[in-house]
Amino acid sequence: MARWAYVNGRYLPHAQATVHVEDRGFQFADGVYEVVTILDGRFADLDGHMERLGRSLAELRMDWPAAPRVVERILRELARRNGLVNGSIYLQITRGVAPRDFKFPANAKPTLVMTAKRVAAFAKPEQLEQGVAVITVPDIRWGRRDIKTVGLLAPVLAKQQAAESGAYEAWLVDSDGTVTEGSSSNAWIVTGAGTLVTRPPSHAILNGITRLSLLRLAAERGIPVEERPFTVEEALSAREAFVSSAGTFALPVTRIDGRPVGDGKPGAVTMALRQAYLDYAKGSTAA
Amino acid sequence: MARWAYVNGRYLPHAQATVHVEDRGFQFADGVYEVVTILDGRFADLDGHMERLGRSLAELRMDWPAAPRVVERILRELARRNGLVNGSIYLQITRGVAPRDFKFPANAKPTLVMTAKRVAAFAKPEQLEQGVAVITVPDIRWGRRDIKTVGLLAPVLAKQQAAESGAYEAWLVDSDGTVTEGSSSNAWIVTGAGTLVTRPPSHAILNGITRLSLLRLAAERGIPVEERPFTVEEALSAREAFVSSAGTFALPVTRIDGRPVGDGKPGAVTMALRQAYLDYAKGSTAA
Repeated sequence: MARWAYVNGRYLPHAQATVHVEDRGFQFADGVYEVVTILDGRFADLDGHMERLGRSLAELRMDWPAAPRVVERILRELARRNGLVNGSIYLQITRGVAPRDFKFPANAKPTLVMTAKRVAAFAKPEQLEQGVAVITVPDIRWGRRDIKTVGLLAPVLAKQQAAESGAYEAWLVDSDGTVTEGSSSNAWIVTGAGTLVTRPPSHAILNGITRLSLLRLAAERGIPVEERPFTVEEALSAREAFVSSAGTFALPVTRIDGRPVGDGKPGAVTMALRQAYLDYAKGSTAA
Repeated sequence: MARWAYVNGRYLPHAQATVHVEDRGFQFADGVYEVVTILDGRFADLDGHMERLGRSLAELRMDWPAAPRVVERILRELARRNGLVNGSIYLQITRGVAPRDFKFPANAKPTLVMTAKRVAAFAKPEQLEQGVAVITVPDIRWGRRDIKTVGLLAPVLAKQQAAESGAYEAWLVDSDGTVTEGSSSNAWIVTGAGTLVTRPPSHAILNGITRLSLLRLAAERGIPVEERPFTVEEALSAREAFVSSAGTFALPVTRIDGRPVGDGKPGAVTMALRQAYLDYAKGSTAA
């Protein structure tokens, strides 16, 4: 089946999906994005992603390229054209094309781009059986990590460093020693007392949509939750650790900087929350 | 005369210059750039810009898209095709096109884009006669401002805030109260004692090519120079202030947050350095 993309009103073969070199997404990282997962033919947390997209746009005073319901219709149509049963839609909106100038352009039309990807498996069997490793690196990102912008070079460098260390993800550590989040995921631990801990939303992290759903699912199951920062040391002495994102749901972390977390095996709370999320997502809006 | 751009081996009419939506410059701000000014048919500080470009690429472990001398040849050819006598070439290199993944792609070829712009006047007469106004805003950028990346959203927001305040530029202020630099320029003052002060190069600022030339020109003229941070308060009590960049050379700053600098008029040292830079640049490599 051919792979289709969408750019500013047109569905195009993926290879022909282009933007002008003076698009502000290309020259200034002046754009925002979302990744929506499709799981067994259902959009996972679509409403949450659309809502956060609106928030990102508002924070940067960017316009919607079309009404939200129209953007959502395009997203559905692109999933349909690509025959996505399991996969994701990547959606990016930029401030548009304009002669290069730092200031907001007066008359640019926002750029809307979507690409589609099929996913054979959202996690490898060994990632679920053994958990994944993370490394820790200083968090050198800008001060507005709550906005989901395409200014992702710091996360790119962190993720690359993780990969070169044989790790799956990098946890970013603020100057006060607390973990902010992963390079493309939120970070969680389960304490020895069984309390689920993750950092509260602020300018320091992106408030993950999967994060919000996991918090709700945990509460529904009576799991005690604390939204507060934690240090690398606390994570190392925790019973469980995991990361969450739209594409990984909840994925067990069993090593941090080469040292085991808990007994070094995926934790029961983590795996229960992962299953709860999958059950929840499969029951949501049809793609 | 038609306007030409360059993208990956092809000279194209400006409107047709595009990159793929999965270019890492568009999706991750995983790219670097330079702006080279052409002044009376001469490239200003071309060697300096090419050298810094090499440094930016090395810091991000990105490859040159072609040998530096080939990139320089393309830059000259693009200036020629656009008939540039006064103007600039914008040059951007990204890590290339690859399926979206934070990690560095294994086999992507770097993207090379250049655009050309004619400039009628590098400064408006009133900017030179009255000086420009700056505002100060918190510096919320990432930790590696020494690399000239396209991750420019924080500077974009600062410049927009300046424009909405009726100012020309925003000076970015670190948490310790010192000025790092402008959103797209370096920041300078001349003290009551006649000493030229600008922040030393570090991860906190971009080491401007025009900045380096101005430091050399000042030394040649026997102007005392101190490379050290200064606060907004010190700038307000200074005799002169100015900004420097490839497109503005040295431009007098006469108001900071609405308050006058010195006697509120462009300073003698500033204007002498501006003229020194123009004389120097007009004597450099022919375009």
